[in-house]
Amino acid sequence: MSDHAAPAPRITTGPLPGSRKIHVEGSRPDLRVAMREVDLAPGCGEPPVRLYDCSGPYTDPAATVDIAKGLPPLRTAWVLERGDVETYPGRPHRPEDDGLKPGETIAVPVFDRGGRLPLRAKPGCRPTQRAYARAGIVTPEMEYVAIRENLRRADLTRANRDGEDFGAAIPDEVTPEFVRDEIARGRAILPANPNHPEAEPMIIGRNFLTKINANIGNSAVASSVEAEVEKMVWAIRWGADTVMDLSTGRHIHATREWILRNAPVPIGTVPIYQALEKVDGRAEDLTWEVFRDTLIEQAEQGVDYVTIHAGLRLAHIPLTAKRVTGIVSRGGSIIAKWCLAHHRENFLYTHFDEICEILTAYDVGISLGDGLRPGSIADGNDAAQFAELETLGELTHRAWAFDTQVMIEGPGHVPMHKIKVNVEKQLALCGEAPFYTLGPLVTDIAPGYDHITSAIGAAMIGWFGTAMLCYVTPKEHLGLPDRQDVREGVVTYKLAAHAADLAKGHPAARLRDDALSRARFEFRWRDQFHLSLDPEKAQDFHDQSLPADGAKLAHFCSMCGPKFCAYQISQEVRDLAASQDGMAAQDGMAAMSEKFRAEGGEIYQPAKPAAE
Amino acid sequence: MSDHAAPAPRITTGPLPGSRKIHVEGSRPDLRVAMREVDLAPGCGEPPVRLYDCSGPYTDPAATVDIAKGLPPLRTAWVLERGDVETYPGRPHRPEDDGLKPGETIAVPVFDRGGRLPLRAKPGCRPTQRAYARAGIVTPEMEYVAIRENLRRADLTRANRDGEDFGAAIPDEVTPEFVRDEIARGRAILPANPNHPEAEPMIIGRNFLTKINANIGNSAVASSVEAEVEKMVWAIRWGADTVMDLSTGRHIHATREWILRNAPVPIGTVPIYQALEKVDGRAEDLTWEVFRDTLIEQAEQGVDYVTIHAGLRLAHIPLTAKRVTGIVSRGGSIIAKWCLAHHRENFLYTHFDEICEILTAYDVGISLGDGLRPGSIADGNDAAQFAELETLGELTHRAWAFDTQVMIEGPGHVPMHKIKVNVEKQLALCGEAPFYTLGPLVTDIAPGYDHITSAIGAAMIGWFGTAMLCYVTPKEHLGLPDRQDVREGVVTYKLAAHAADLAKGHPAARLRDDALSRARFEFRWRDQFHLSLDPEKAQDFHDQSLPADGAKLAHFCSMCGPKFCAYQISQEVRDLAASQDGMAAQDGMAAMSEKFRAEGGEIYQPAKPAAE
Repeated sequence: MSDHAAPAPRITTGPLPGSRKIHVEGSRPDLRVAMREVDLAPGCGEPPVRLYDCSGPYTDPAATVDIAKGLPPLRTAWVLERGDVETYPGRPHRPEDDGLKPGETIAVPVFDRGGRLPLRAKPGCRPTQRAYARAGIVTPEMEYVAIRENLRRADLTRANRDGEDFGAAIPDEVTPEFVRDEIARGRAILPANPNHPEAEPMIIGRNFLTKINANIGNSAVASSVEAEVEKMVWAIRWGADTVMDLSTGRHIHATREWILRNAPVPIGTVPIYQALEKVDGRAEDLTWEVFRDTLIEQAEQGVDYVTIHAGLRLAHIPLTAKRVTGIVSRGGSIIAKWCLAHHRENFLYTHFDEICEILTAYDVGISLGDGLRPGSIADGNDAAQFAELETLGELTHRAWAFDTQVMIEGPGHVPMHKIKVNVEKQLALCGEAPFYTLGPLVTDIAPGYDHITSAIGAAMIGWFGTAMLCYVTPKEHLGLPDRQDVREGVVTYKLAAHAADLAKGHPAARLRDDALSRARFEFRWRDQFHLSLDPEKAQDFHDQSLPADGAKLAHFCSMCGPKFCAYQISQEVRDLAASQDGMAAQDGMAAMSEKFRAEGGEIYQPAKPAAE
Repeated sequence: MSDHAAPAPRITTGPLPGSRKIHVEGSRPDLRVAMREVDLAPGCGEPPVRLYDCSGPYTDPAATVDIAKGLPPLRTAWVLERGDVETYPGRPHRPEDDGLKPGETIAVPVFDRGGRLPLRAKPGCRPTQRAYARAGIVTPEMEYVAIRENLRRADLTRANRDGEDFGAAIPDEVTPEFVRDEIARGRAILPANPNHPEAEPMIIGRNFLTKINANIGNSAVASSVEAEVEKMVWAIRWGADTVMDLSTGRHIHATREWILRNAPVPIGTVPIYQALEKVDGRAEDLTWEVFRDTLIEQAEQGVDYVTIHAGLRLAHIPLTAKRVTGIVSRGGSIIAKWCLAHHRENFLYTHFDEICEILTAYDVGISLGDGLRPGSIADGNDAAQFAELETLGELTHRAWAFDTQVMIEGPGHVPMHKIKVNVEKQLALCGEAPFYTLGPLVTDIAPGYDHITSAIGAAMIGWFGTAMLCYVTPKEHLGLPDRQDVREGVVTYKLAAHAADLAKGHPAARLRDDALSRARFEFRWRDQFHLSLDPEKAQDFHDQSLPADGAKLAHFCSMCGPKFCAYQISQEVRDLAASQDGMAAQDGMAAMSEKFRAEGGEIYQPAKPAAE
């Protein structure tokens, strides 16, 4: 699986090494929260470690995966019992939805919806999680999220909680009521289009675990729909909390249907990409009507959140003229081109209320795009970027008035000393609506390593209060990521998000670090691998130096070898101190010295046979 | 070269793609400072970009590399003309220096020193850069460093300087006098053993460019001395400012000689590793005499700085008893074992003055080791760590009294919110002596990706004031790094160090980012590659998506394809704004709109043939 040259598998299934899928039941039998648990070595005296799990049924050996049928519609009952949505025939499907010219026929398989019709709000209803939250209703989705976020945090003694959260309000325990309150305040969103009942509820907000998004896109070469679904499955296997489908070109609609029906995570899109396809790539030919139609098309399919660059106003464009790298957002440049060509205000801005009405009817979250995000260190935090952010603040409040769920996109390329003010401004201007940033990259000089330059900024901005981090792969600026690039990007962002959670003092975050470090210290190699973000790579790297199976039981590793191991002597120090009644050990040093010599004075202990 | 399976080359020579070696002459003809310059595309109107260069003659096509002869002794004349050192026969070479038993013969080639004898201080003299600096003497080494650090910073307009330096004193221009003053204050060190005249002078201090160190070690399998030299050459090719030789086992002395004679960067060691070999790996058998002899052995060979764990005191050991990961420093655990076995104070602490006398006689810098650095998030910033740091502060002042050059080693594993206080304490306790940290890693859960978890901490701690960052490779905690791991680790740390320099507002740092970003924006692909930290990987990644040679000239890339490119429209926006008299453009939007349409309204311009 780690070989670049190997043919891509069809759909990757099966658990990560050492993990078991579990389901924690909530207040009703159809509310079963998926998690994974890692069992540690028998005899080590440690309980299983419970981990947040984005990977869906694909890692559940008890689940049958058939992408032609799609995933079970987990949320349908919850959606329907609220009684505020209704089915309707939906807009007619058109050849241009798939980029086809009149007379052309579709060249990919079409997912069989089995007659399932789209759902939308009944007249006068606002079926969004925000509307429910503001009405004081705790939905099953909110309860699911509470259980999911909570993990075992109650097990962590309060004394261990330490961190700097910069004014966040992370609770000791996540209750359904807390989830409701955060959504009602607009500080969190729970993307959950009723037309995507396959998705497992998750939440994005600064008082919850930091989330990450992975982008996927269709291949230029006509690949199979299976390969497109596999991209999503692969990204969530390594930990993507949401996936954005940024496909362009032909068969967008049909491919997206396959992805949605098989996605256990929220799916985001940038609808203007598809709208642009419908006008043959000519930005100046875009119209509100084409955009509106595309938005409804995607909402009916089940897209959970959409990036809309409504904050890039005509008046902002001249502010980019002296930038080193101008406008680097694709959506931003499309809008800028349209505005320049017509000398008119951005139609997404002028039609913003209508956009919100549509989004609310399908509970599609809006991710307010930062079309003017900086594309270089030189442009970080400039007038164009912050002018747009002010508009995004205005739009946040307008969208909230429609009970649309809102998050805000952020940079980009920003040197470390300019990162924090981005969060401060965003929180202030946008009423603490969740921030969703791309990196930021903290230098421009490392193409080929931009997953790392951006992970530095991502960890920091996550710590400061960003709710979701959009991943960057090693191929950023250079080319299209392959399978291993996606894995590298996702794991890199998982570690950055986790570092942010640790620094914020998230109560459950350190459980995993401590469990892994204890495993490391006690030479429980397999436990160390299994608790890793990428257990396969960890084991593979260990195997490269010490391939023998017995090495997984050895009380040393290849770094220092059997002759001298720092961990081993440390354990002796600890044992000695314990035998001296703990910290009174200093007075007993002479005795310790004797005991140490009496016991052999050797730090290398031959590996013992494995415990049963 | 990027293929894991390919056989290792003998000695890698030749420039990085697009770079030329240059030499900037100082106040005397034998003071020629090596740098590299990247020429940008003809016609782009940009000057060559001058880059700091650690790679030595290996990247100079004009130099003849013959490792049997070693590098030219660049500094010999400077050393001798000061008249404060003298040759002497040196300590007798013993079989145990190479780990040989009586009667065994050495199994590796021995470097032919051609009769060169070791140098040491004349009686009563202190031939250290610190002593010279305090005496008001600007040495050629200091002038070299001033020119080297300065690069083109005078070209940067003052208006562009921005950053947060947390009380550092980074000058607009580095003068030889500034270098002298920083060394005299103890805020910087210039490691330069007279017995290593092959090294190009460099400086480590918070008011200079952030440096990185790469560790190398001999292979367990008896490899050729050429392979050992190549490890060093490979590390400096990618940007290691210093290299630590952490070899253990047999042939340490002989191998180190090959490395030193061929190293254009300072070489550091941890002498207790070799001392331990001399007592057959039994820590409790270590004596001051064996250690002292090893220190002199290495000083005579030319080691430029040594890690000595003198700050780990007997009384500190019980503080580690309740740690999750105890003592993880190898040197620290050796000392702890010795202290426990004898119930005596650390002999490195009790003999510290004698250590300083020896180091001063050879101008070997001391890197005060942090034997109690935390090995897990749980142990970060604990009582043991900070107790040792207090002792390191005491030892700093004691070493300064001998005119020994001093730096201080730091953690380790520390969550983000606990990083800054490490620097604050270190600066306060150690009188601003340079801080030299390993990472820190900001989470424990990503083995296989610990170059990244540690680069996050390294970038931050570098920003806060750390002078040198010790690299971590992807294999950390799991196994021994191979060639590609070393490259990955070095480049990752280069980008972290550079990010720190940007955030500190280092005046010259942003020149490279801006030049690369302009190249990116203007589709000068080759310039973008050549300005990258890893030009080969950047080009390789681009080739994977667009292998055709013409793609390097295309006004698009594989991310958005030719149909729509954000950069292209941005350039049009800029051109339009410029034609509208800059920022008055807003009033002229109608005219702009017309002009835009008149010019075709298309953003894709076919790639033009290459300029000559």
